[in-house]
Amino acid sequence: MKRDVFNHILPQRFYAEFLKIAPGLKDMGKRSRNIPVMSDLDARFRMMDEFGEYCQILSLASPPIESFAGPEQSPDLARMANDGMAELVQRYPDRFPGFAAALPMNNPDASIRELERALAELGALGVQIYSNAAGKALDAEEFLPLFDELAHRDKAIWLHPARSGNFPDYLSEDRSKYEIWWTFGWPYETSVAMARMVFSGLFDRHPGLKIIVHHMGAMIPYFEGRVGYGWDQLGLRTSDEDYGGLLRSMKKRPFD
Amino acid sequence: MKRDVFNHILPQRFYAEFLKIAPGLKDMGKRSRNIPVMSDLDARFRMMDEFGEYCQILSLASPPIESFAGPEQSPDLARMANDGMAELVQRYPDRFPGFAAALPMNNPDASIRELERALAELGALGVQIYSNAAGKALDAEEFLPLFDELAHRDKAIWLHPARSGNFPDYLSEDRSKYEIWWTFGWPYETSVAMARMVFSGLFDRHPGLKIIVHHMGAMIPYFEGRVGYGWDQLGLRTSDEDYGGLLRSMKKRPFD
Repeated sequence: MKRDVFNHILPQRFYAEFLKIAPGLKDMGKRSRNIPVMSDLDARFRMMDEFGEYCQILSLASPPIESFAGPEQSPDLARMANDGMAELVQRYPDRFPGFAAALPMNNPDASIRELERALAELGALGVQIYSNAAGKALDAEEFLPLFDELAHRDKAIWLHPARSGNFPDYLSEDRSKYEIWWTFGWPYETSVAMARMVFSGLFDRHPGLKIIVHHMGAMIPYFEGRVGYGWDQLGLRTSDEDYGGLLRSMKKRPFD
Repeated sequence: MKRDVFNHILPQRFYAEFLKIAPGLKDMGKRSRNIPVMSDLDARFRMMDEFGEYCQILSLASPPIESFAGPEQSPDLARMANDGMAELVQRYPDRFPGFAAALPMNNPDASIRELERALAELGALGVQIYSNAAGKALDAEEFLPLFDELAHRDKAIWLHPARSGNFPDYLSEDRSKYEIWWTFGWPYETSVAMARMVFSGLFDRHPGLKIIVHHMGAMIPYFEGRVGYGWDQLGLRTSDEDYGGLLRSMKKRPFD
């Protein structure tokens, strides 16, 4: 039996609401709308049948909720998505033995509440978060209680890239062209998110935190030589304020 | 005999001028100053001797001239760098059988003149350019005459990454942290520059253009599956204006 742990779905009620709220979405939203198996369960089952002994751990398809809904609206959408995935798991346990919950990351308090609800009431296996939350890095202070809670409950994080066409590739431009934001931008940003978690001290705070990184670990396995050799020299290339900040953050590590 | 075609040097006179003009450089500049073999020829020869039958095709060390000198000053600096490298090749032909010229890319007219001088008078094998020119993408209209000239003369381009700490990794930030701009940003930006050259139609205009890409082709070889499969679907994820722009640019291709 093959368990596909990182694939996506748009549950019916959430999908209808998503189309209503954000009918003109480009980039990530445009793609998700154009893939039938994201929202058509019969098409999905036909595709799954091609792979024999095969089941899926569900997570919500991009775009991230916080990228198209404000902090007032995003908690309802996350609940709707999680209720939909929980229902699919309950109705088709052989197809879908579990799911990772969606969170409204632009509303940190609501994220904690939804995390608790999804784990306790819906049986979620963990949560899916994106490599940025509406543009913010995951090592922002406001997300720390969420990581604390996940570590405390020993629940996994599914880490998905989030960059869209609005992130430029050059300082002189304001958008990424030719889908570069997807082709190279997603593995780039996933790698950035992993590095930021390490250097901001998240794994010093929670050595046992479990993160399932999408796309085979993004750039890290392929650039192992550069990652290792490069960061062994940390500080040789940094702006001094960055290096000082890093040293200060390391002094704060609870396990030193 | 091993020919190392992509390594860097700071010729004496250029190096002294560089320190005078930009003594407080961070990030790329900080690194180059801290590596003795970049400017100390004896140290360099001792290192080279460790590798036996080994010689180097020289190119200038980062940072790019246009990143620390304005368009009035950069042409003089490029001349100084190229005169220095040409002199090294003349004095030590066994160590340094050739060099790639530096160009003042924030001054396109002066770049063409310096290209012609370096090829005709100094015997340069080609030119080194960076993956951005003071923040601008290489497919900007102003650089087209330079690519035309290089294609016409059948001279190679050494393509080097250029990103520095001032390029942020998140929309909510204004700088890259923890040297991420170097570790992941360099292979990312090199890959972006390659894609932009392809999709802007540069190889349709000049199918024989020769480009030596630093760091083993950056992300492209490692992400071949994503690059191929992903861009086969081009337009499914793009913002419509981008896709329209691409189609228009393809209609302009001279070889269709």
